[in-house]
Amino acid sequence: MSNGGCSDLETGSTFMPRYDAQGLMTGIAIDAESKEVLMIAFMNAEAVARTRETGLAHFHSRSRGRLWLKGETSGHFLRVQEILVDCDQDALVMLVKPEGPACHTGARSCFYRRLVGNRLEAVQN
Amino acid sequence: MSNGGCSDLETGSTFMPRYDAQGLMTGIAIDAESKEVLMIAFMNAEAVARTRETGLAHFHSRSRGRLWLKGETSGHFLRVQEILVDCDQDALVMLVKPEGPACHTGARSCFYRRLVGNRLEAVQN
Repeated sequence: MSNGGCSDLETGSTFMPRYDAQGLMTGIAIDAESKEVLMIAFMNAEAVARTRETGLAHFHSRSRGRLWLKGETSGHFLRVQEILVDCDQDALVMLVKPEGPACHTGARSCFYRRLVGNRLEAVQN
Repeated sequence: MSNGGCSDLETGSTFMPRYDAQGLMTGIAIDAESKEVLMIAFMNAEAVARTRETGLAHFHSRSRGRLWLKGETSGHFLRVQEILVDCDQDALVMLVKPEGPACHTGARSCFYRRLVGNRLEAVQN
């Protein structure tokens, strides 16, 4: 039975999210079907809790200093189907079904450019 | 022709990595073949430069406060095949060919558990 001890962090079955000094962890949204990385943003405890409660990806906007429901303006919500947790529990992968482009630029994914030499080139989407 | 101006950040072809107040951006390693998320860690300018120079994923270890060549101890290097840059250029996706388990626990990916209710369950790998 877990006592929430240190060794449990990597091998245990207890969810013990670890936030950094700013109270944040990294959240990565992956298209559950295509496996494409859609976006990455930071999550605090509130964002993690709201994501789990609602099934919609929430983040913490560092620029606005507040909870951010992805799609709150655009309607392009990310419906979370599964959450994966990494070894030291400071990052989450969310497998999502996107309800529209994930990027505010209108691109399906925020990662729409590849680095070639010192230049960025458009990725085929 | 790009002048490196602000609008260029999202639409341009100039690589203008944006590091946070700690000098860091997020780096995500994805298996180029299976598309599985392998690991996530932070990169500073030095880590980005060394990754590009060598073709091997480098990160910045916050706990050790130094450059970290992934695999420097284990030999499990991540050979970078492609680097994707996100819209605001503060996160990189590296499509890699892993030379062994990416996780220090021996797991292929650091994301070997899923969150089910309040518990973590092993993901089939």
